[in-house]
Amino acid sequence: MTTAGSKIAPAVPTAAELSRVDAQWRAANYLAACQIHLVDNPLLKTPLRPEHVKPRLVGHWGTCPGLNFVYAHLNRAIVQRDLPMLFVTGPGHGGPALYAQTWLEGSYSEAWPEVSYDEAGLRRLCRQFSFPGGVPSHVAPHVPGSIHEGGELGYSLAHAHGAAFDNPHLVVACVVGDGEAETGPLATSWQSGRFLNPVRDGAVLPILHLNGYKIANPTLLSRIAGSELDELLRGNGYAPRYVEGDDPEPMHQAMAAALDDVLDEIDGIQVRARSSGRPPERPRWPLIVLRSPKGWTGPSFVDGQPVEGTWRSHQVPLPGVREHPEQLSRLEDWLRSYRPELLFDESGRPTGEVTALIPRGDRRMGSSPQANGGLVLRPLDLPEVAAHAITLERPGGTTAEPTRVLGKWLRDVFALNRRTANFRLFGPDETASNRLEAVFEVTAKTWLCETRPVDDNLAADGRVMEVLSEHLCQGWLEGYLLSGRHGLISCYEAFAHIVDSMVNQHVKWLKVHRGIPWRRPVASLTYLLTSHVWRQDHNGFSHQDPGFVDHVANKSPEVVRVYLPPDANTLLWVADHCLRSRDYVNVIVAGKNDGPVWLGREQAALHCARGAGIWEWAGAHPNREPDVVLACAGDAPTVEVLAAAKLLRDHLPAVAVRVVNVVDLMRLLPETWHPHGMSDREFDSLFTTDRPVVFAYHGYPWLIHRLTYRRAGHAGFHVRGYVEHGTTTTPFDMLVRNDMDRFQLVIDVIDRVPGLLTGAGPVRQRMTDERERHRRWIVEHGEDLPEIREWSWEGR
Amino acid sequence: MTTAGSKIAPAVPTAAELSRVDAQWRAANYLAACQIHLVDNPLLKTPLRPEHVKPRLVGHWGTCPGLNFVYAHLNRAIVQRDLPMLFVTGPGHGGPALYAQTWLEGSYSEAWPEVSYDEAGLRRLCRQFSFPGGVPSHVAPHVPGSIHEGGELGYSLAHAHGAAFDNPHLVVACVVGDGEAETGPLATSWQSGRFLNPVRDGAVLPILHLNGYKIANPTLLSRIAGSELDELLRGNGYAPRYVEGDDPEPMHQAMAAALDDVLDEIDGIQVRARSSGRPPERPRWPLIVLRSPKGWTGPSFVDGQPVEGTWRSHQVPLPGVREHPEQLSRLEDWLRSYRPELLFDESGRPTGEVTALIPRGDRRMGSSPQANGGLVLRPLDLPEVAAHAITLERPGGTTAEPTRVLGKWLRDVFALNRRTANFRLFGPDETASNRLEAVFEVTAKTWLCETRPVDDNLAADGRVMEVLSEHLCQGWLEGYLLSGRHGLISCYEAFAHIVDSMVNQHVKWLKVHRGIPWRRPVASLTYLLTSHVWRQDHNGFSHQDPGFVDHVANKSPEVVRVYLPPDANTLLWVADHCLRSRDYVNVIVAGKNDGPVWLGREQAALHCARGAGIWEWAGAHPNREPDVVLACAGDAPTVEVLAAAKLLRDHLPAVAVRVVNVVDLMRLLPETWHPHGMSDREFDSLFTTDRPVVFAYHGYPWLIHRLTYRRAGHAGFHVRGYVEHGTTTTPFDMLVRNDMDRFQLVIDVIDRVPGLLTGAGPVRQRMTDERERHRRWIVEHGEDLPEIREWSWEGR
Repeated sequence: MTTAGSKIAPAVPTAAELSRVDAQWRAANYLAACQIHLVDNPLLKTPLRPEHVKPRLVGHWGTCPGLNFVYAHLNRAIVQRDLPMLFVTGPGHGGPALYAQTWLEGSYSEAWPEVSYDEAGLRRLCRQFSFPGGVPSHVAPHVPGSIHEGGELGYSLAHAHGAAFDNPHLVVACVVGDGEAETGPLATSWQSGRFLNPVRDGAVLPILHLNGYKIANPTLLSRIAGSELDELLRGNGYAPRYVEGDDPEPMHQAMAAALDDVLDEIDGIQVRARSSGRPPERPRWPLIVLRSPKGWTGPSFVDGQPVEGTWRSHQVPLPGVREHPEQLSRLEDWLRSYRPELLFDESGRPTGEVTALIPRGDRRMGSSPQANGGLVLRPLDLPEVAAHAITLERPGGTTAEPTRVLGKWLRDVFALNRRTANFRLFGPDETASNRLEAVFEVTAKTWLCETRPVDDNLAADGRVMEVLSEHLCQGWLEGYLLSGRHGLISCYEAFAHIVDSMVNQHVKWLKVHRGIPWRRPVASLTYLLTSHVWRQDHNGFSHQDPGFVDHVANKSPEVVRVYLPPDANTLLWVADHCLRSRDYVNVIVAGKNDGPVWLGREQAALHCARGAGIWEWAGAHPNREPDVVLACAGDAPTVEVLAAAKLLRDHLPAVAVRVVNVVDLMRLLPETWHPHGMSDREFDSLFTTDRPVVFAYHGYPWLIHRLTYRRAGHAGFHVRGYVEHGTTTTPFDMLVRNDMDRFQLVIDVIDRVPGLLTGAGPVRQRMTDERERHRRWIVEHGEDLPEIREWSWEGR
Repeated sequence: MTTAGSKIAPAVPTAAELSRVDAQWRAANYLAACQIHLVDNPLLKTPLRPEHVKPRLVGHWGTCPGLNFVYAHLNRAIVQRDLPMLFVTGPGHGGPALYAQTWLEGSYSEAWPEVSYDEAGLRRLCRQFSFPGGVPSHVAPHVPGSIHEGGELGYSLAHAHGAAFDNPHLVVACVVGDGEAETGPLATSWQSGRFLNPVRDGAVLPILHLNGYKIANPTLLSRIAGSELDELLRGNGYAPRYVEGDDPEPMHQAMAAALDDVLDEIDGIQVRARSSGRPPERPRWPLIVLRSPKGWTGPSFVDGQPVEGTWRSHQVPLPGVREHPEQLSRLEDWLRSYRPELLFDESGRPTGEVTALIPRGDRRMGSSPQANGGLVLRPLDLPEVAAHAITLERPGGTTAEPTRVLGKWLRDVFALNRRTANFRLFGPDETASNRLEAVFEVTAKTWLCETRPVDDNLAADGRVMEVLSEHLCQGWLEGYLLSGRHGLISCYEAFAHIVDSMVNQHVKWLKVHRGIPWRRPVASLTYLLTSHVWRQDHNGFSHQDPGFVDHVANKSPEVVRVYLPPDANTLLWVADHCLRSRDYVNVIVAGKNDGPVWLGREQAALHCARGAGIWEWAGAHPNREPDVVLACAGDAPTVEVLAAAKLLRDHLPAVAVRVVNVVDLMRLLPETWHPHGMSDREFDSLFTTDRPVVFAYHGYPWLIHRLTYRRAGHAGFHVRGYVEHGTTTTPFDMLVRNDMDRFQLVIDVIDRVPGLLTGAGPVRQRMTDERERHRRWIVEHGEDLPEIREWSWEGR
């Protein structure tokens, strides 16, 4: 392999080579068009008849020829340089091209033996495309070599960089569509090149494909002056090359030359950086702009309207093939224009001309090990949780800042896995704000731009990825995980919603991936949501939103997990568990502020393993059936529930109170609905079937109802949580405004335990008075009542 | 006013003028620092004592001096040119600056008389900042002149353009922070200038403020070479000017000159475009890059660490003021460095030197009428719904494509409001795909880049805004609405999640806005979500997600509304209702595919006004108490429920079936929880308290449980919906995969109506067989069974 290995440029491509690239291109274009139109007769051994045509023509031709062109040219370069390369398909609906190319190289049939490498396989390849029970139009997990589906646009370049990080020998070729280029996530992804370290990381080769049109419009970047586009790309840090035209022969020459040029340049950048012995400077990475017609080589005109080179070739250029003999004959002419008889032999296999410049084995982009990340995944060496846990003499006997404790454990994760270099921490400028800064004792933030003396913890080889874009953090991490590494993203809770839609797509990817036998398990994507809704003292309403959990809870239950560790020790246990897990999206919601540690290391482990449990030490009269269950999930709710339990013990000592804490939220679901779900028996043993349950929950209260509505005791559930009453105020005031404070919880108990109200009237009044006293106090003093600030659980 | 009015450039600013700008700047900086630190003694009439300091110091100094600098310079230009200008504060936590500036100009005290224009008012201004019950750190709706909070970063430039559209005389000055500039939405917002028509729209003046630091990191754009930044901005279509330095005097000169220059240039662009009589060409808009120190004029060093000009000035530079006498004295020195005795008179009012170059009346940016859009809002002239409704002889007697019918009505909305020019349609390249293309009969898509003969419906004065960025569409529309106009956004249902977080912020804005007496109602933000989960035949799993409704349903009930019109006529009624509404976020989910029209125009109006109702004509034995209620919400569920009702009538004629259709989803909530909620009495009269309810819902089924769990009959609710079983397949197969098809609904009824199962065994088996027959059919034929495709409701 030559990347970072030598500086010998390959010879100028010969006409014979380009003829082979052209054969490969024509074969792939032919198969793409066949997939969109045909159910049978894929080699055109007989004249095309209506029954060979699909009953419903769905598919997208427009992007395919350009993708095929790039893929064929990359193949030539891979063969000549023995390059490990990964292909990312940015444009939507690129499926037909990638199914075609991976079939031609044999990767597809190896992954899916039923789609064999012969005529029968070709028939199946055509039939399955966009057919019920078949394969989708995007480059979904079904496609070998894919880590990027391209269903929702905007994430290709971020995924490509994620795959390139810590893969020093890999070149990730990333085709960016000019439609996709209009999205926000893609627009900011151009900045990724500034985070790519030429010493330790691989290279990303962006290929901006200007085919000029979206569904129904021209694209912006294809309709600005070439000089303006050049400035834009240079301004984003790249050195662009242009390959422009529509005549295949000169385009082959131009593309081959450009590709040789940029791969030489990448090689040069890496060789220089790796041999200098100094910290690398940020290079100006090369980039190719390919300007070619949309629907290139397809029908030029249909019904008198131009199609090739316009938005009309976006989907099916000949939509009436089955009904109109004239269109059927147009389709046949079109397909025969690729001269399939020269591309496939009698048995349906591609000819030597087609396969001559297709790589072999793992060098085939459809067989890239990094694109099936589980193949190359090495488990993390994780530090002992017990060694980091806070030692505790009694529940609540000490306090800690949970994320600060976690930060020390994460520091050790970095240290233990320094050699394998397969863990990174991602976050939007918030690692220190989220109190994880112990990690900076052993690593730094990746930074290749200018540095100044005032800077802290910036280094070209830092392993903490900070950029003020949740989209980039998420996209990088997805690419990093899918290519077989590990990571964690920490983010303000409210702003996780910025990537809601990316999460949807990642969960969908994982759900499909899990059902594909040759896809090996990858590390889970784990969120640490902190700086959460209850502690936005100075940010206020705009930063108060606990709904990301609701969003995730809607997704496929086999993929999603949600944890609300109530203290530092349980957070450690949960984080350890999440970093060991595979093929999930884990959401951890945890506080960064100083708070009580409730469970010692053994108890924390036991409690987290169970996911929910009774805290006998916190209740009253544990040997009686409870009069009321006080349940909690989340750190702030746990403090309030325990404070309420204490108030009840002090003021209404006869009441039997059971305290239940839930760490693993999905345990609340029935076992038939979620792999973590509890049986009714277990649920009822915690919550009873007939006692009132006052449940203080971290987020929107109706989520608890949605998870428990099928349970026998659900009618008795009364849930408190965040109900969109937010502002800039003190922590306790947030609880009072949303009726989740300890005094209100006591009132809720009094109002719900049968027979209690009569005797407890004065206590109830006192609780109301306390709430009022709080309100007056904060308006005057600007901070919470001293006894609230200094409250602690003293045990009994 | 000179913009678009003349070409006379103002004289070069004199030293006296700049001294007044400086006085204004110092006064605003002084007040910003006071707000962050003080509860009392705002004029420093006595030496500073600990009790003058806030108990909790929260706030963000770093961004304030730069914002104040820009604001003061803009004031000079406004005064000299009599410009109508609107100010958008992109950087987060800009509150102290904007509270200071709007107080200095008097706008603040006019909006909030209790914060009077004197010393008492100043005391209140300081005390309320980031204080419980006070005002937030962002430029929230509380701030007069604001349409952009800056709590969540990334949307400033999109909002600015939304405000500039169709406001030909307005200049929107938009400060973009260099932290914000890293986000995806902001990165793509630079493209907005390409959509700004110099004839009919106002101008946006972006001021990219490079103060160099985020919370804990340098910013990317401040650490790339100046030449690279210049290319980036030019590549985005701008002509940048640079104002760089840290010495106030030359900086004042440079800023004033740059501002005169760019305002002249904007004037020139507009005058030329407006006088040419030809369609305008896309101009290269000017832009200012302001490079000034973070925390400029604040403490240079604290505890031996540099603060001014670094990330350490992001929040409170002197955090220990109350406890440390040394810091208290530093604070006093700092505050006195602005020479407050020259800035405020004895009564606390700013001196003539400060106010000399502050505009008067509506020209004050805090009093911009466009920033309180309800002031300038003119209701739309809406076409008669009845004239567009499909005429119907009997329910289901004809079919229509709902969005196509709506498109004709929207066409007439454009036509009727051509003169006021206060309506636009926004969408990511999907207006035609979503079948609204009738609008192109009267308007076009805004396009100022190059055009070619093949292009369709592109024009510089088009009123349909298409760009492949949901973020831009949403941001533009928000700015357009908040500045007093009307609009609609149409979007693929699944990809509405891309703007989840923007919706959060807009709902929060509206919630706060509704509580502010001087904020006048603005037009609602209405989504048309189409190309929905049940009809993604060729896009597949990545495009199947109905969760946006769940997301919105979590938000403040006074703001959010969700409609699921089952046919074309109800869609018309709902759209008309939404465009008349104010201060809401409306979500309409509707199909674009041909489907039955169920209700004639009067019935549609009545049904939509009620929001939910019994469709007697669809059930069986209406005079008996029902044996089962078949409920539906959404177009696909309605078809299935009616088909199930028909199957029940044919196969189990003795069963009394009631069909209930829900259009307005929030009606399901209790009346105490949502303004549209039903009383229990009304709910029970529709759904009964004791009969089984089989509910077919468009989205995730648990949303219906979450809305109804407090109802008496809830235990009998059985909800079918989308449960994340998706792929590329036929419409009916999607229903079968998610168990919401007609046959499954009949099975559900049989399993749930007491006593029915025994006799109905053969019918149940037949339904199971039908599902199996479907499965075999589609795998073979690739399309749905003919009787499913051709099914229609024939009446009885």
